[in-house]
Amino acid sequence: MWGLLYTRACSGLVGLRSANHVRPLCSSAGITVAQIDEEVAKLLELKAQLGGDDGKHQFVLKTAKGTRDYNPRQMAIREKVFNTIIGCFKRHGAETIDTPVFELKETLTGKYGEDSKLIYDLKDQGGELLSLRYDLTVPFARYLAMNKITNIKRYHIAKVYRRDNPAMTRGRYREFYQCDFDIAGQYDAMIPDAECLKIVHEILSELELGDFCIKVNDRRILDGMFAVCGVPIDKFRTICSTVDKLDKMAWADVKKEMVNEKGLSEEVADQIGEYVSMQGGMDLAERLLQDQKLSQSKQACAGLSDIKLLFSYLQLLQVTDKVVFDLSLARGLDYYTGVIYEAVLTQTGVGLGSTEAQQEAHAEDSVSVGSVAGGGRYDGLVGMFDPKGRKVPCVGVSIGIERIFSIMEQKAEASAEKVRTTEVQVMVVSAQKNLLQERLKLVSDLWNGGVKAEMMYKKNPKLLSQLQHCEEAGIPLVAILGEQELKDGVVKLRVVSTREEFDICRADLLAEIRRRTSEA
Amino acid sequence: MWGLLYTRACSGLVGLRSANHVRPLCSSAGITVAQIDEEVAKLLELKAQLGGDDGKHQFVLKTAKGTRDYNPRQMAIREKVFNTIIGCFKRHGAETIDTPVFELKETLTGKYGEDSKLIYDLKDQGGELLSLRYDLTVPFARYLAMNKITNIKRYHIAKVYRRDNPAMTRGRYREFYQCDFDIAGQYDAMIPDAECLKIVHEILSELELGDFCIKVNDRRILDGMFAVCGVPIDKFRTICSTVDKLDKMAWADVKKEMVNEKGLSEEVADQIGEYVSMQGGMDLAERLLQDQKLSQSKQACAGLSDIKLLFSYLQLLQVTDKVVFDLSLARGLDYYTGVIYEAVLTQTGVGLGSTEAQQEAHAEDSVSVGSVAGGGRYDGLVGMFDPKGRKVPCVGVSIGIERIFSIMEQKAEASAEKVRTTEVQVMVVSAQKNLLQERLKLVSDLWNGGVKAEMMYKKNPKLLSQLQHCEEAGIPLVAILGEQELKDGVVKLRVVSTREEFDICRADLLAEIRRRTSEA
Repeated sequence: MWGLLYTRACSGLVGLRSANHVRPLCSSAGITVAQIDEEVAKLLELKAQLGGDDGKHQFVLKTAKGTRDYNPRQMAIREKVFNTIIGCFKRHGAETIDTPVFELKETLTGKYGEDSKLIYDLKDQGGELLSLRYDLTVPFARYLAMNKITNIKRYHIAKVYRRDNPAMTRGRYREFYQCDFDIAGQYDAMIPDAECLKIVHEILSELELGDFCIKVNDRRILDGMFAVCGVPIDKFRTICSTVDKLDKMAWADVKKEMVNEKGLSEEVADQIGEYVSMQGGMDLAERLLQDQKLSQSKQACAGLSDIKLLFSYLQLLQVTDKVVFDLSLARGLDYYTGVIYEAVLTQTGVGLGSTEAQQEAHAEDSVSVGSVAGGGRYDGLVGMFDPKGRKVPCVGVSIGIERIFSIMEQKAEASAEKVRTTEVQVMVVSAQKNLLQERLKLVSDLWNGGVKAEMMYKKNPKLLSQLQHCEEAGIPLVAILGEQELKDGVVKLRVVSTREEFDICRADLLAEIRRRTSEA
Repeated sequence: MWGLLYTRACSGLVGLRSANHVRPLCSSAGITVAQIDEEVAKLLELKAQLGGDDGKHQFVLKTAKGTRDYNPRQMAIREKVFNTIIGCFKRHGAETIDTPVFELKETLTGKYGEDSKLIYDLKDQGGELLSLRYDLTVPFARYLAMNKITNIKRYHIAKVYRRDNPAMTRGRYREFYQCDFDIAGQYDAMIPDAECLKIVHEILSELELGDFCIKVNDRRILDGMFAVCGVPIDKFRTICSTVDKLDKMAWADVKKEMVNEKGLSEEVADQIGEYVSMQGGMDLAERLLQDQKLSQSKQACAGLSDIKLLFSYLQLLQVTDKVVFDLSLARGLDYYTGVIYEAVLTQTGVGLGSTEAQQEAHAEDSVSVGSVAGGGRYDGLVGMFDPKGRKVPCVGVSIGIERIFSIMEQKAEASAEKVRTTEVQVMVVSAQKNLLQERLKLVSDLWNGGVKAEMMYKKNPKLLSQLQHCEEAGIPLVAILGEQELKDGVVKLRVVSTREEFDICRADLLAEIRRRTSEA
């Protein structure tokens, strides 16, 4: 890997006249990785400025790695999904905010643990050091601290950026949307937390993605468990990251990482292994409160009591059918302090790649592939931004919308129903030549009347091609102008689905169109 | 400026151990500006890694320069503006697409002329060289070429990025939204162009921003004019950029730039000066077609004929009242090839800063401050991306939404009407203690029934504070639960505005709420 980079960097020097400031590097001792990175970046940049290999430049027509365009069909589906999600957030009384796509680099520093390496930085072009946002939670916390807001219920739908290995057939991109709902404020235990789970339940049900399950756990239970199993306190977060891999890796491999990479003893790992295999409901929380070992941890007991309370609220909110208390749930991010949760689709194979290669990729990864929402409580994050460290307790959930898009897209493809990409109600059409002026006048009247209308941008389009466009685009009505209609002061209104035609007096046209399109 | 940068870069070396690869640069001859930039970037980066000045680190709680957050109130206004604009785009039958926020750097190279220096680059972290999009037009052209699309009518609303000098009191940011509508395809002259102007007219009218004027011109007329005035052909674009400053600078200063910086003779500049002072309608186009000098340019004549045709269509579309043919309109970007236009608000002082400093800043800039939409025809851009150079003619318009937000915000502030930031219809409230469970059950029923509802996240909130929240948030209805209501199987429904209260049977509650909220 390094060899390859180095070769590429040096090949960039072919034809470079003033390379004297680079040479000393190649022979210098004591250089750091960061310095090498810098030099590599610089050489690649110079290479780019020189127009690539030997000045011959092949332009590549593509989007950046891990990103994609949305075509109109995908946008129509996206709009539908967003409407469902925003509808739910609004039903729960959330306001919305927006933050810039980049933040000061230091705003993101120290918030994401081992994932920090995936942050995109902007080039220093003079001025501040900036990074693209990695999620919406840290900017939200920065926003609260900056504006001294102590309570708010807000949603935020926007793109975030991670230099991850993209797996685009499974809906994993480097640029992707997050749909976040968060409740900030000092409230009574587990009430806002329960609402977040209610929201996940509502959204996944409404989108009809098939059966799902919402796993819940609590960071305090994990930390208490680590403590009673004998994990050193400075290893809690890194062991937590390893436990988090249980949805992608078998226990044997997770244990191997704990022992070989993270330095736990076999015995400690095995004790953890016993706990993280447990799943249940309120009953499990009650049982663990009696567990001889775990009950010695005050933290674990606080977490378990809250899980009990949470379940009692979830019963009242009628969502316990889908919620499981799962001790293997860990979540990767550093900032969680209490309850955590994650929703997974349990019908594997839904909406996945249809080629053999895609299916194979899926089979490899079939356990993790279904995660579509996640979140938890983060009571310390806002305090990290406040100059006086004032805390604002927060809990929230993020809907993993890209995966949902992928599934909805494939459902739309499989179904017979056509996805309309425009909402045009009427196509203004001419039956003879030289009627462009009349068409312009009519379409202008329709637009002024609030009707969604279009016409072909040709002086003399063929009637057939105009009608064909209506069929293809799913436009329900055609307003036909011909010499006779103009003479009679009427417009011929054609219903595309039935091919019926009616002469409508010009003065009544708007009303007639409204009547017919509100019917549909 | 350079001195400053250099000092900063070198001060970053304090405490840096292995700086040996930097030193040769400082003494090397023949170094280019780009190489210096690189080194500066590198040193600043190293400085940042070292934790800033002497390791003392003061965390700054702010958004990046030239960017801002939107609070819920601003978002409510933004949503309203977007709905108007999207409503218009949909009325005209546009589909929508989306593209990534960053593009390959080379996709943006050579498209923006003198403005290219304002492009944000991403840091090279290995892999491709990327830049944040500068507008939505170039990504659109890339999208068309990549997908071999030869005709489409699409809108795209998204943020773009320019490292400009922000003037935030006037709605000028480094991150800002563009709302673009474009028509791609080989059509008859001026028909899609006329629709773009119709759209500007509709949107600005509907938003009620005060009086406005849409200036139109044609790049072919400008180029023809430059030719007949004696501007060398290789200076057309740069002189065009200078003419573009006429909305911000007096003619005397523009002329000075042409003569002193761009090397035109006084005589040539004066000839240009005569033309660019002309304004009119279709009549001016007719007169210039007879102009002895200008009519010698085939290009100019083609442009003038199209302006005539455009005005005839605009008459049919009923928008000529706001359109002016203005020979001083040039537009900054390189890619325009035909008709160009720009809409300006003509009521200066509307929606501008209210402090004295802001008003002063405005006075300085009062001519240019009103530009709220712009666009034109760019028939060559898609061909720049196509491997075989196949052209797709395009015309489009971009709505300058940030400035519109600023104006709408100030209008909202000035008006007595309250901006609601949520859509909550019912607040579920308890009149006595220990009714959390009942409130949870009721709010859950309301959510399940599609009602927008909320409750306080407290076990025993005070009745008064619950009712106060309704007043503040503009929630129209309160559902009150007390011991008596529970016993009677009813809910007390309170109308906030009138303070009337009714006991509603639990089974009829949903219907009653729907009836009362659809009335409003």
